[in-house]
Amino acid sequence: MEYFDARDFDLAGRIGRLKTGSGVIETPFLFPVVDPAKQTVSLEDIRSIGFNAIITNAYLMYSRMKGSVVDIHDFLKWRNPVMTDSGGYQILEYGDVDVDEDTIIEYQKRIGSDICVILDIPTGTHTARTQAEKYVFETIRRGWRALPRIMDSKQLWVLPVQGAPFKDLLEYSATISARLPYHIYSLGSPTVFLEKYSYDKIIEYTFITRSKLPYNKPLHVFGVGHPMIIPFLVAIGADTFDSASYILYARDGRFMFEWGTRSLNELFYLPCSCPVCSRFSVEELKEMNSRERIPLIAKHNLYVLSSEIRRVKQSIKEGRLWEYLEYRSKAHPSLKRAFNTVKKYVNYISRFCSLSQPLSLAILFLDRDSIHNPRIVATRMAVAENISRERVSRAILIPAIEKPFDQQRILRDVSSEYPGYRVLMYNPYLGLFPPELSSTYPYYQHETGLFEINTSVVEETVMTLLRMGVEEVVLVLPDDKVFRDFALNISRVLVDRGIKITIRESSSHV
Amino acid sequence: MEYFDARDFDLAGRIGRLKTGSGVIETPFLFPVVDPAKQTVSLEDIRSIGFNAIITNAYLMYSRMKGSVVDIHDFLKWRNPVMTDSGGYQILEYGDVDVDEDTIIEYQKRIGSDICVILDIPTGTHTARTQAEKYVFETIRRGWRALPRIMDSKQLWVLPVQGAPFKDLLEYSATISARLPYHIYSLGSPTVFLEKYSYDKIIEYTFITRSKLPYNKPLHVFGVGHPMIIPFLVAIGADTFDSASYILYARDGRFMFEWGTRSLNELFYLPCSCPVCSRFSVEELKEMNSRERIPLIAKHNLYVLSSEIRRVKQSIKEGRLWEYLEYRSKAHPSLKRAFNTVKKYVNYISRFCSLSQPLSLAILFLDRDSIHNPRIVATRMAVAENISRERVSRAILIPAIEKPFDQQRILRDVSSEYPGYRVLMYNPYLGLFPPELSSTYPYYQHETGLFEINTSVVEETVMTLLRMGVEEVVLVLPDDKVFRDFALNISRVLVDRGIKITIRESSSHV
Repeated sequence: MEYFDARDFDLAGRIGRLKTGSGVIETPFLFPVVDPAKQTVSLEDIRSIGFNAIITNAYLMYSRMKGSVVDIHDFLKWRNPVMTDSGGYQILEYGDVDVDEDTIIEYQKRIGSDICVILDIPTGTHTARTQAEKYVFETIRRGWRALPRIMDSKQLWVLPVQGAPFKDLLEYSATISARLPYHIYSLGSPTVFLEKYSYDKIIEYTFITRSKLPYNKPLHVFGVGHPMIIPFLVAIGADTFDSASYILYARDGRFMFEWGTRSLNELFYLPCSCPVCSRFSVEELKEMNSRERIPLIAKHNLYVLSSEIRRVKQSIKEGRLWEYLEYRSKAHPSLKRAFNTVKKYVNYISRFCSLSQPLSLAILFLDRDSIHNPRIVATRMAVAENISRERVSRAILIPAIEKPFDQQRILRDVSSEYPGYRVLMYNPYLGLFPPELSSTYPYYQHETGLFEINTSVVEETVMTLLRMGVEEVVLVLPDDKVFRDFALNISRVLVDRGIKITIRESSSHV
Repeated sequence: MEYFDARDFDLAGRIGRLKTGSGVIETPFLFPVVDPAKQTVSLEDIRSIGFNAIITNAYLMYSRMKGSVVDIHDFLKWRNPVMTDSGGYQILEYGDVDVDEDTIIEYQKRIGSDICVILDIPTGTHTARTQAEKYVFETIRRGWRALPRIMDSKQLWVLPVQGAPFKDLLEYSATISARLPYHIYSLGSPTVFLEKYSYDKIIEYTFITRSKLPYNKPLHVFGVGHPMIIPFLVAIGADTFDSASYILYARDGRFMFEWGTRSLNELFYLPCSCPVCSRFSVEELKEMNSRERIPLIAKHNLYVLSSEIRRVKQSIKEGRLWEYLEYRSKAHPSLKRAFNTVKKYVNYISRFCSLSQPLSLAILFLDRDSIHNPRIVATRMAVAENISRERVSRAILIPAIEKPFDQQRILRDVSSEYPGYRVLMYNPYLGLFPPELSSTYPYYQHETGLFEINTSVVEETVMTLLRMGVEEVVLVLPDDKVFRDFALNISRVLVDRGIKITIRESSSHV
């Protein structure tokens, strides 16, 4: 894509460059919503906190200015990229807007917006099924109809994908939308779910949308502005977000953190290193009048959003986005549910692992969830596929405990006693693999907090051995309880399948 | 204690006020090490980042000034509290110092330090056992001998507890030290373990020391200056820390984060919201010369340390320090090991639960580790103790799934069918409890990410029922798999003990 170019990948997320008429936006990115009529945080502040693009509402501007056209960059005194929304949110809130679909398209073109949205009809949460179907068809119809008007413009155009909360409708809508040559697709109005902390729902809708759309085009998610959820959405392929939450939360005295939300009244200390929290105390903020306090809390919220996006990008560069999600998932039960939803898509996500070139940073085994790390899953599957093509009747399985695995004394000692046996190594997280891989990624590059047994790895291991055609297996058992139980689980299933098992204790050799 | 006064408690940690001759220090606190001969970050900056007390080395000052006496507050131009170290670290590094124990005590008194340390002999890591014993005895002897000199002084005096890495020696040393009336005790020189990321070791040594010392006196831990480990040490009762790591790391271009360490060369983005990371980019920092860059990285490190301490204090106020440790433990395998070490001390920690008065904030069930949340452990134990005193031959056990538990339809429907049965509720995390408690803390105030079965809760539940003398149990089984498995585990053990079990499916009632 000449306007979107991604170079760093991890999971289904990426760092991209979105080229607009007023400059490049590095994604993942969040467009802060600005309203020139009541902007509490100055655009210079927004810029200096780390946001080089903003979004404003073209429909509100059109209404207030009675349709008269001004250059939006002049009007906002902002030379960087501007995205404009079209009034879809107002339709959701008030049922209708007093502008038609063609007019608002032309208006966005004439004011010189860089990224524009067609006037969609959001389905929202309280819409009946038949009504939602109508809105989806109407949004798609408008998407089709708008094409001649927008294809020659210098703007980037966004097509909202409606249908949520009806999943089949959303999937249908995304499938059809994928055929319309828009620059950017977006998941429409999930704000309502965010307010209820139903992060798992937003993740599900984002996944459904993303998986039906071309991966080389960016996906925008409307109305998502909390740092808690951003890494999870990036991991499944969301690229940009927009939100007014930084100021809406601030008006209620609420501080966003990447691990939760607290109102000023719940805070005794400001548990954050941002310039606002480093300079003021809770008492000082409480003593201020709201005209002083609200912009400070809004700036805190922007600082946290900005650093969270940097954190996500650094994690993508390091190839540790999965580890980052594991970590964040322990901050709050709602994030645990969010993470469990992401886990459902591991097979989809692991497809993208080959795109990423990690900095040879070690994979971290933090918890049971690390068994599902898509890098590990992809490695286990690829290696299982390779070795299951070997035709081997006798194998010896040696525990892979101490790195480098092929330097373990047990390997040298025991394997020489069994000439003609295929030597394989086993590990509760890494599964079954040949010793030859011991010094390659990730067999050498991982760090372990703990190991646990997961039945699916046991099953994978057994399946690989059966596909190889083994008839006799020598199983070397170490003292370590987890490895031992893992091996005994394997042995039990193999015995059931009629494989001859010989158990060898390794303790005399280590 | 007139000089130390703690009001907020959580786990074995607390927020305290340490009163010195130059003002109050709120604990937990970290004293940044300053060296007037080569101070890169100004004391005004240190103050404004949030540190109202510092530590400097009285021995180095004595050497450089050839013993001449100046007021240390004048000398440093610092009106706030000053702690001074005595040269123990130099003994560890260079084997000896050219000052005797009495002279350095008198010197610290005369320069007007607020918190002083006697000249101890650190054991360090490479000392042989017999040598370490000598150092421990000598440190204790010096502690005794110093008493007449220091008891009348206006300073607060610190007695270092030596003996690590020999645990029995450390325990002995702490037990004897507890009898010496010092204001503050300290764990000597664990820096060496920090450098190797052996957080589990430092936690173990801190616990051994803390558990032998009077709880109403503060415990200092020398040389701990990484935000990763601070919450874990606070949770087991450490109050203050000191470290030069903010500047030592900065000289190597290393950034501390609460989740890890990265050198500037490993960073593509600055994943932090502090004033330094919010203002500069990685490229800008790389282009600076080291004279500009080092103070900026040092300030970043101080900002992160300062906000981490605020985060820990906020967690103590909320009664959520355990949840915070669970969360942090997933940031890195070394923290997982640190957390597993803290878990070993849950029985000790849960003793302090009664001290804390949480803000009725919900307990978060984030993970399996939440089963060991000392608040939950203490509740389960107290309730088990109470109900096991009842003499009951027939009981009906009802799953506690939906809050409020006593409003569940299943409770009303089923319990009326069994008149004369003691109605009890069960839950894989909360154990066994009477429905009467359903609206009390924490039976109502908790939030669930997931449930899992832990055999120790199964055993506790069975034990309570047996102590009650039950002969017949009606077990109501819900559809939920985890609750069901939990109940079936209980049933299996009860059947083995000869208890008559009747299984009731609840699905027809829910």
